Amino acid sequence: MSQMESQNIFDNKVFFDSYMDLRQKANFNDLLEQPAMRKMLPDIKGKDILDIGCGFGANCLEFSALAHSVTGIDISIRMLETARKINCAGNIKYMNLSMEDMDCLPSMSYDLVYSSLAFHYALDFDRLISSCHRVLKKNGILLFSQENPITTASKNTDNRYVRDEEGNVFFKLADYQSEGERHVKWFVDDVIHQHRKVSTIITVLCKNGFMIQECVEPKPDKDAVKILKGLARDLIKPSFIIFKALKGD
Amino acid sequence: MSQMESQNIFDNKVFFDSYMDLRQKANFNDLLEQPAMRKMLPDIKGKDILDIGCGFGANCLEFSALAHSVTGIDISIRMLETARKINCAGNIKYMNLSMEDMDCLPSMSYDLVYSSLAFHYALDFDRLISSCHRVLKKNGILLFSQENPITTASKNTDNRYVRDEEGNVFFKLADYQSEGERHVKWFVDDVIHQHRKVSTIITVLCKNGFMIQECVEPKPDKDAVKILKGLARDLIKPSFIIFKALKGD
Repeated sequence: MSQMESQNIFDNKVFFDSYMDLRQKANFNDLLEQPAMRKMLPDIKGKDILDIGCGFGANCLEFSALAHSVTGIDISIRMLETARKINCAGNIKYMNLSMEDMDCLPSMSYDLVYSSLAFHYALDFDRLISSCHRVLKKNGILLFSQENPITTASKNTDNRYVRDEEGNVFFKLADYQSEGERHVKWFVDDVIHQHRKVSTIITVLCKNGFMIQECVEPKPDKDAVKILKGLARDLIKPSFIIFKALKGD
Repeated sequence: MSQMESQNIFDNKVFFDSYMDLRQKANFNDLLEQPAMRKMLPDIKGKDILDIGCGFGANCLEFSALAHSVTGIDISIRMLETARKINCAGNIKYMNLSMEDMDCLPSMSYDLVYSSLAFHYALDFDRLISSCHRVLKKNGILLFSQENPITTASKNTDNRYVRDEEGNVFFKLADYQSEGERHVKWFVDDVIHQHRKVSTIITVLCKNGFMIQECVEPKPDKDAVKILKGLARDLIKPSFIIFKALKGD
């Protein structure tokens, strides 16, 4: 992988199989991130939607029932093969495209640019957000979730939680002010995330002409924690952050 | 102090004396927060400025050299006495007013609403931001700094840093998702800060009609760390966050 190319970890077979297995079980996406994203979703009836990092296409299929058209892009050929098999519809188009390289997409074509948990893989965030702005129609919406900067901050991710003498659990935070690559063990040894400060994310959105409308750091409810105990850690520190932003006139 | 009244810790004599003493020495305000605020300051020549939580008036005096008028408000009578003594000018008006209670200030009167490290004391953030919006002229700017939500998160603030076996220093983060009062020891035993998630701050600004333009989490430079070693901890986790937002037409 070259320095300036997005990581394509989802085409790693071990990673892919483990990820697909995880998504079958109770998981953070279904219990925490997706419910929050749904609440923030604008009206999609009759709209043209771009889903960046669409993965195996679950969201694309769901959008396609109401939307006029859905374009799903992903860097992973393996993911798109699965998407075309299990989540296809006449108004969905899947394209093998990195989010770093959306120049071939036509300008002012989408009412909604949507992305679930992909932007923390982007190497060039400014370029990505500029592309999102370019492909949106006037008054179009960008809605994306990504790993929370608190979660991506620390370079050393061993034993991330400590318990004090009174039994309180703390999350070990470090390196917040140093943006850049973070090497994480997630199914396989070296998944690369990009750490960006929340102030950078906000400023890049604004400088590219977006008006932020809402920001959410999803908090698990009691029912969700009953289903998946690990979610309780999201009361200590948030895993995700979601932004909804408007492209003005 | 009633539940719904802002804390007036600056009128506590022990706190006041310790604070004034701190501000004489090398400190986080002068080396980290104020340089960042200066970079974000709009053109103030001939402008009308409101400084919320103006303290002893150092910023008011500085603004007054260029601005048309400066209004400094603070809940602390002791602070304002000092301000009137050492930082007065013909175009500065100091008023003893809580930021929770700005109803007596006239609408659409200021080009800039400025606040340095006061908003984390506000009990009702929504009301505060709504007031800021009301008193600003069209195209006016709100520029404020406050404690970073990462810093205000943990309820237990004993031994906030831990060192692992390899000597790396971590900040202990907890309770991020639980907004509300935080009791901090700072000169005196029980200074009350309000913890709000960054997503809440952003969303309240947007819902009240502000367009966020820039956000900064100041990072200390090498020269500053040489002067005050404690600043190195701001490489691990940010102490402050600064927002610049526009009141649109």
